[in-house]
Parts: sequence; C-alpha cells; structure tokens
Amino acid sequence: MQRKAINPSFLPAPTAAFNRAFEVDFGDMVWLSISGTASVGTECQTLHVGDFKKQVTQTYSNIKGILLEHGYAVEDVVKWRVYLKDITKYYDEFNACRDSFFAENGISREKVGASVCVEAKICREELLVEIEAEALRKK
Amino acid sequence: MQRKAINPSFLPAPTAAFNRAFEVDFGDMVWLSISGTASVGTECQTLHVGDFKKQVTQTYSNIKGILLEHGYAVEDVVKWRVYLKDITKYYDEFNACRDSFFAENGISREKVGASVCVEAKICREELLVEIEAEALRKK
Amino acid sequence: MQRKAINPSFLPAPTAAFNRAFEVDFGDMVWLSISGTASVGTECQTLHVGDFKKQVTQTYSNIKGILLEHGYAVEDVVKWRVYLKDITKYYDEFNACRDSFFAENGISREKVGASVCVEAKICREELLVEIEAEALRKK
Repeated sequence: MQRKAINPSFLPAPTAAFNRAFEVDFGDMVWLSISGTASVGTECQTLHVGDFKKQVTQTYSNIKGILLEHGYAVEDVVKWRVYLKDITKYYDEFNACRDSFFAENGISREKVGASVCVEAKICREELLVEIEAEALRKK
Repeated sequence: MQRKAINPSFLPAPTAAFNRAFEVDFGDMVWLSISGTASVGTECQTLHVGDFKKQVTQTYSNIKGILLEHGYAVEDVVKWRVYLKDITKYYDEFNACRDSFFAENGISREKVGASVCVEAKICREELLVEIEAEALRKK
Repeated sequence: MQRKAINPSFLPAPTAAFNRAFEVDFGDMVWLSISGTASVGTECQTLHVGDFKKQVTQTYSNIKGILLEHGYAVEDVVKWRVYLKDITKYYDEFNACRDSFFAENGISREKVGASVCVEAKICREELLVEIEAEALRKK
C-alpha cells in the first residue's frame, strides 16, 4: 500500500497542513480522496465572486483537472459531497449546474455515483459552494 | 472492479444527476455508498412534515430498504453521517430514535459502526434530518 | 472481512448507539473509521470551554490516542473532516493549530492526507470543533 499527496499543477499547494488530494495505491487499484474544492484559481484567489453558477462550474473544473492529471476519469468518482452556502437559494441552480457538467462530459446519470448535499458555510465568505469527492479506479 | 448505480424500487430515481446509492464490486466484497437519504416517500414527497421522530424512523426505513433490497444487512454499515436541521433541539431525540432503530433490528451497539452527527440545513425546508451511510460486505 | 467496534480506554463508550471508531480488517490491511471526535475528557465532559485552541489540541489528542492505542500512526489517516462552529472566526486559528499538531508529531505536509473543513454546529453548545478521520494501514 503506497500513499501519495496530490497537488495539481494548476493550483498552489495549500499553505496549511493538508493536500488537495491524497492517493492510496492498493496494487491493483488506486483510491483518490479529493479535499474540499472550491472556485479558486492558480493563485488560490477566489474566482467568480457573487456568481453561483460560475463558481459551481469552476469547482467542477478544478476537480476534473485533479482527476485527469492523475489518470482518473470523472466517472471514477463514486461519492460526491457538496456543501452549499445557502441551500434554500441555490439547491435548484446547483442541480441544473451539476446536470450540465455531467451532460457536457458525456456521463449518463447511472455513472455519476452517490451524493450528499447539505448547507454549510465555507472557509471564505465569498465562496458559495465546496465539493469533495472519492474516486476509485483499476490501475 | 464493477460499478453499479443503485436506485431502490420504492423511491423514484433522482431527477438530478446522482443516484440513491452506488455500489463498487471488488470481486470478493462489495461496497455500497448510500446518498444522503431523508424522510421521503414513493413519489419523493416529504413524509411526516413537522414530526422529527417519524422523519428519523422513515429515513432509517428508507436506508434499510436500500440495504436489504441489494443484499446488505443493516449491520454492514460501517459509517453513518447524520445531518440535523436543529441539533440543539433534536440531538437527544435523535439518539433516542437511533437507539430504538438498532434495538428493533436486534443490532447491539458494538455492531453499529462509526458515526458523525452535525447540524446542517437540508435541501427542503421541511426536512429535519438527512443520513448517509457506507456499507461493506463479503459477496 | 472482520469488523470490530473500537472504544478507547481513555473515553467512555458512547451512551447512544454508535462507537468511537470502527475497524474493518481485510486480511492484509485494516481500515479505521473514527467517529466525530471533540474536546471531551475521561467522563465525556467538555474540556476547555471557551478556548478554541485548546479544544483543537484536545480533539487531535483524542484522535491520536484512538489511533495509537489500536496500532495506527497519525500519518495513517488519509482523510480528515473538520467541522468548525464558527468558520469566519476560527478558520485561521484552526489552520495554525493543525500545522502545530502535525509539526509536533514530525509529520510533513505531504503525509497529512486530504481534508475538508466547513462550518457546522456540534452536539453541545460549548463545543467549537469536531473532527472525523479515516485511516488505512497494512497489518
């Protein structure tokens, strides 16, 4: 069993003690646990302040980037955990954005995995969504 | 490693891009990740508006239904994650309901698994509890 | 696949139906899922009311105690989930405490694992932080 910290090329490594993702290699398969990911850019600055839809799209783009850069496909994710800053306001819009993301990636619903979505405030006031993911694939 | 979307017979599949549960088959064992589950009925309508205890019972019943329909026992769950809309108001009552559920299913405490329970608002205003679960069993 | 409830010697077992941690033994490796853990003492009383930094330190100490007592090292944790009662107020301080904890245990950042941190109220009004963890190790 090998372990490896994963910090993608397009985001700075966290300044605090954690990694953007962490991989466990079981020999015949690998498991990637992706940290809470939000709408941030190459300098870790918040992108799309005030625009929920663009924040969701950016968040998925960051997660997809982590996955692809390390040999995973989006459909290798088996569990998604979503935190919305205001679930009353954004839940329907989130579902529309989520549907668009998977449709644009050619992933039909039965390949999306399991999910949970609840309301939670995120580490920066202006962040409206944060998503974590667990992926598994054969080597 | 095979993957399978799980949507039980007694609940409609989600209209958004996710599944009620998702199973990974490792050959000798299977892992079932159950999505956030709440007190909803066969038309996905909220059941037991305003009645916390009945919502918890219904939520556990839905999770148990998913487990049993796919060959799992309740004690195959190794981790429970519970979100209460108002933890100050409902935490003690939740524990009483949880104890009753496991007692009624003949499951002693040392078989219940690990758990986390925090406060979080859920996707519908009237939902008071949401539970996700991770189960593992030999094939 | 063997399962075992884990309740450490230095904390009382929960009075409700769950365990402080739960271990699954896969033969060549073991997985430990640690329940939501907070700043509580040997009688399950809250420790360090009103002192965020000491609560974080105590929480990590409790998790470390569970890990070490059952043959795990702190760096066997692959995913940390952190719930802060007030993320606006405490996020920076949490990161400083987290950094100190890993530094004091000689664990460099690339061994810390993945993490998520969101705001959530916890089961007791005076608890300011709760952390859950997933650990994996070879036997």
